[in-house]
Amino acid sequence: MSKPSVPQGMRDLTPEVVRRRQYIFSTLRNIFEQCGFQPIETPSMENLGTLMGKYGDEGDRLIFKVLNNGLNEAAKHDKTRAALENVLSGRNDANLTERALRYDLTIPFARYVVMHQHELQFPFRRYQMQPVWRADRPQKGRYREFWQCDCDIVGTNSLINEAELLYIYREAFYRLQVPQVIVRINSRKVLTGIAQFCGAEEKLVDITTAIDKLDKIGSEGVSKELQQRGLTEEQLNNILRLINIRDLAEMEAAFSEKEIHTGLDGIKELKDTLAYHDTLGSSTWNNSEIKIDFTLARGLSYYTGVIVEVNCADERVQMGSIGGGGRYDDLTGLFGLKNLSGVGVSFGIDRIYDVMEQLELFPESIAVGTKAMIVNTGGANEHYALGILQQLRTKGIAAEIYPEPVKFDKQMKYIFNRNIPFSIIIENEERETNTVRVKGFPEAGQLRMGIDELIEKLA
Amino acid sequence: MSKPSVPQGMRDLTPEVVRRRQYIFSTLRNIFEQCGFQPIETPSMENLGTLMGKYGDEGDRLIFKVLNNGLNEAAKHDKTRAALENVLSGRNDANLTERALRYDLTIPFARYVVMHQHELQFPFRRYQMQPVWRADRPQKGRYREFWQCDCDIVGTNSLINEAELLYIYREAFYRLQVPQVIVRINSRKVLTGIAQFCGAEEKLVDITTAIDKLDKIGSEGVSKELQQRGLTEEQLNNILRLINIRDLAEMEAAFSEKEIHTGLDGIKELKDTLAYHDTLGSSTWNNSEIKIDFTLARGLSYYTGVIVEVNCADERVQMGSIGGGGRYDDLTGLFGLKNLSGVGVSFGIDRIYDVMEQLELFPESIAVGTKAMIVNTGGANEHYALGILQQLRTKGIAAEIYPEPVKFDKQMKYIFNRNIPFSIIIENEERETNTVRVKGFPEAGQLRMGIDELIEKLA
Repeated sequence: MSKPSVPQGMRDLTPEVVRRRQYIFSTLRNIFEQCGFQPIETPSMENLGTLMGKYGDEGDRLIFKVLNNGLNEAAKHDKTRAALENVLSGRNDANLTERALRYDLTIPFARYVVMHQHELQFPFRRYQMQPVWRADRPQKGRYREFWQCDCDIVGTNSLINEAELLYIYREAFYRLQVPQVIVRINSRKVLTGIAQFCGAEEKLVDITTAIDKLDKIGSEGVSKELQQRGLTEEQLNNILRLINIRDLAEMEAAFSEKEIHTGLDGIKELKDTLAYHDTLGSSTWNNSEIKIDFTLARGLSYYTGVIVEVNCADERVQMGSIGGGGRYDDLTGLFGLKNLSGVGVSFGIDRIYDVMEQLELFPESIAVGTKAMIVNTGGANEHYALGILQQLRTKGIAAEIYPEPVKFDKQMKYIFNRNIPFSIIIENEERETNTVRVKGFPEAGQLRMGIDELIEKLA
Repeated sequence: MSKPSVPQGMRDLTPEVVRRRQYIFSTLRNIFEQCGFQPIETPSMENLGTLMGKYGDEGDRLIFKVLNNGLNEAAKHDKTRAALENVLSGRNDANLTERALRYDLTIPFARYVVMHQHELQFPFRRYQMQPVWRADRPQKGRYREFWQCDCDIVGTNSLINEAELLYIYREAFYRLQVPQVIVRINSRKVLTGIAQFCGAEEKLVDITTAIDKLDKIGSEGVSKELQQRGLTEEQLNNILRLINIRDLAEMEAAFSEKEIHTGLDGIKELKDTLAYHDTLGSSTWNNSEIKIDFTLARGLSYYTGVIVEVNCADERVQMGSIGGGGRYDDLTGLFGLKNLSGVGVSFGIDRIYDVMEQLELFPESIAVGTKAMIVNTGGANEHYALGILQQLRTKGIAAEIYPEPVKFDKQMKYIFNRNIPFSIIIENEERETNTVRVKGFPEAGQLRMGIDELIEKLA
C-alpha cells in the first residue's frame, strides 16, 4: 500500500487552522450582515461554457475540468472516440467534459444575477465566501484550492456604494486588528484622462499596464517600456509628471487645463466617494488610512470606475495585496443582461490568514475548544462523572470525559497536550462527598470543591 | 448567447436558504464544540487512488474525476494517446485523470488520521462539515453536490463514546426542535448472533440484507428472499422470531440458551451504551426517543459494533433516515494504520433542511438581515443620513441607506419587498431638528423621534 497523500497544491486544514479561518469568516460575515449584504452560494461546478473565455487564454488553461460521468460506458460510441480524437488534437470536447470547477466568485455571481433577475430586488447586495480552484503551479502561499470572499452591489450607480465598500474594508481590518492597512484608491477614468492628456488614448492599455508595474520596475522601467510601445519623449514626460501627483486638486487642475472630461469625471467620483466615506467612517479606526494613488491600475479589464486595492504596510510582512475591487459597468452583459452597473470588493482570505499568523494577531481564545476534561477513574466513579459532565454541558461549558479508565498519568498528559485548561479529578472520596478536585494548568496543586462552585469557576 | 444555467443536479443557494443552512450548521457546531470535537477540513480533491475501490463498483462509477491540467499540451505525446486508448477500452488512466472530487467524509477522514497520526492526540474527536459530490441521477431531494456533517471519535473502544454520540443526536434535534425523532439502535454483533443462532453464519450478509428491507417488503418478503438464498424453514422461523423481539432481556435469554457469545457481547454493548446514555442524557429532551431495533442493519460493511439510525416519525414528513452511523474497527487499515477503533455518526444536512422547511421549524428571526433602511431624499439630507447610518452600525444594528434619491414610493416598495422591518425617513425638517421619522411594517403611520430614541427602538 502506498503512503497516502493529498493532491499537489491542496492541503488538509487542522483544527487550529479551521478555527482561525472561522474567526476571519465570522468577523467578515458580521460586518456584511450589518451593512445589509445577503449571503448566496453557487455550485462548485459550472457549465464549461459559463467559464471558458472569461479569464483570458491563461485562465482557460488553468480551469479544472471535470470528466463526464459515464465516459467509460460511452466509450463504445463513435462520438466518444471522436471526442478523444479532438482532445488529441488539442481541443476540448463536450463529450469528454462539459463541467468545470469554479475559478472565481465574480463570473458565477454575474451568472446568478442574470438567472435570478426576476426574483431579486435591485439594488442587490450579496456576499459570498467559497473556495475556488485553479491549476496554477503551486508555490509558497499559492494553492490550487483557496477561498475567496466577495461583496458586491449591483443595480445602482451611486458612489455611496463605493464609500460603503471602503467602510467595509476599514471596519474589517479594524476588527481583525491588522496594523498599517493602506487602502489605495484610483479611478479608471483618471487613467483614461492621463492617456488623453498625452494624446495617446489609443495606447491606454499599454500605458495602464506599464504604470501598474511602477512599484517593481521604477520610473525608468516604465519609461523604457512605454518608449518601446512608441510613446514620444513629450508624452512620456507628461505621464511621469501626472502619475507623481499625490493630490486630487492638482490632478484636477491639470485635466481642467486641457479640458479632459473623462479625467475630470474620475476626479469628481473620487472626491464624492471620499466625502461620503468621511461621513460614514468611524472615528475609532486607528490602523488604516486611505491613499489616493494615481498609479493604481488593477489588471482586470472589466473595471470602469473607481478601483481600490488593500495592502498591509507592516515591514515584517512581505505580501502582495490582501484585497481589491472596483466598479464594473457591464459584467452581467456577458450573460445577456445589459446596463447593470455594479461595484464590489474581494478579501484574500488565505493571504489575510498568513499576515495575521505572522503578526500573531489571532486572539488566544480561538484556540481553546474544550474547557475541562474529567479524568476517568472507572467503576462507579464513571457514572458519577457522566452526571457532572451532563451538568457542565447544560450550562454551556465545553467539557469531555476521558473515555477509558487508563493510567492517571496518561490521562493528565493527554489533557496537557490537548491544551485543555482544567482537569477534573474524581475518585471515591469525591463521589462519596459529592465534590470534585480541579487542577488548572499551569497552576500547581488541586482544589476540592462542590459542583456549583465548579460550574461557577468554569462558566 | 445561450441562456445561462447550472449543471444538472446542482443549485444556487439563495440568501434565505443560505441563512437557514447556516442556522443548522451553527447549531451543530456549537454542540460538537461543547462535546470536545475539533473541526478539520480536507481538500475537495483527493488522489484517485485514495477513493477508488472504497465504495464498491457503483461508487467507483459515481465518483467525479477531474481532468488532468495541461492535457491538451500533453496530447502530442504518445503516453497521452495511450491514455485515451485506455479510456476507449473502458479503463481509467493516470495520464488522463489522477484526481477526483470527495465522495464522502469518511474515507478522507481515515486518510487524514493516517497522514497526521504523529501530530494527533488519541483519542481524537473531530467534526467535519463539507460538500461531497456524486454523479448520481438527480431527483427530488437528491443532488450531485450535497453537504455532509460527520463527527467521529477514533482511538478508543469505550462505549462512553457511543453514548456521547446518542447525546449529540438527541441534543441536536432538541435544539433544532425537530418533532418525533426516533433514534434506532442495534449492534452488528446481535445480527451475527442471530445468524449463528440459526446455524447460518456463512449467510450473514444475505440475512442482514434481507432484514434491512423488512420495512419495505414485510415479513413475507423477507421469508421469500431468504428461502431463495437457501435457508431452511426452521432457520427462517428462528430469524423471524428473533427479529420480532423488542426487548434486550428477551434476546439475551435466547442467546444464552444456545451460548451465542458474539450475540451476548452485542447485547452487553447495547446495555452499557444505554446505561451511559441515561446518565449523560438531558431531562429536557421531549421530542426524541431511543428504540432498540434488532432489524436495523445499515448497508455499509465496515461497521462492526453498535449501529444507529435516526428518523423523523412525524406523519407529515415522508423522508428516509436523517442521520446514521456506528462503530468500525479497522477503517484506517485501508491506509496502513491497523487496530484503530472508531465510532461516528453523520447528519444528513439536506434532508434535515427539507424536514425543517416542511414543518416550518426555522425561527423567523433567521430570515431578517437588515433591520432598518434609510430612505434617501438626496442633497444635504444624504450626508445627515450617512451620519445616522454610521451611528446605527456602531451600535451593532444592521442598517442600510437606499443608495440613490429616487422616488419615495419606489424606495418604500423596495423596503417592503426586502422584508426590512423599519424604514427611516429624513427630510429637511428632520435634518434641521436632528430627528428622524420611523415607520415600522406592517404598522400604519410614522413616528418622529431623536437619534437616541431611534437607537433604543432598533437595538
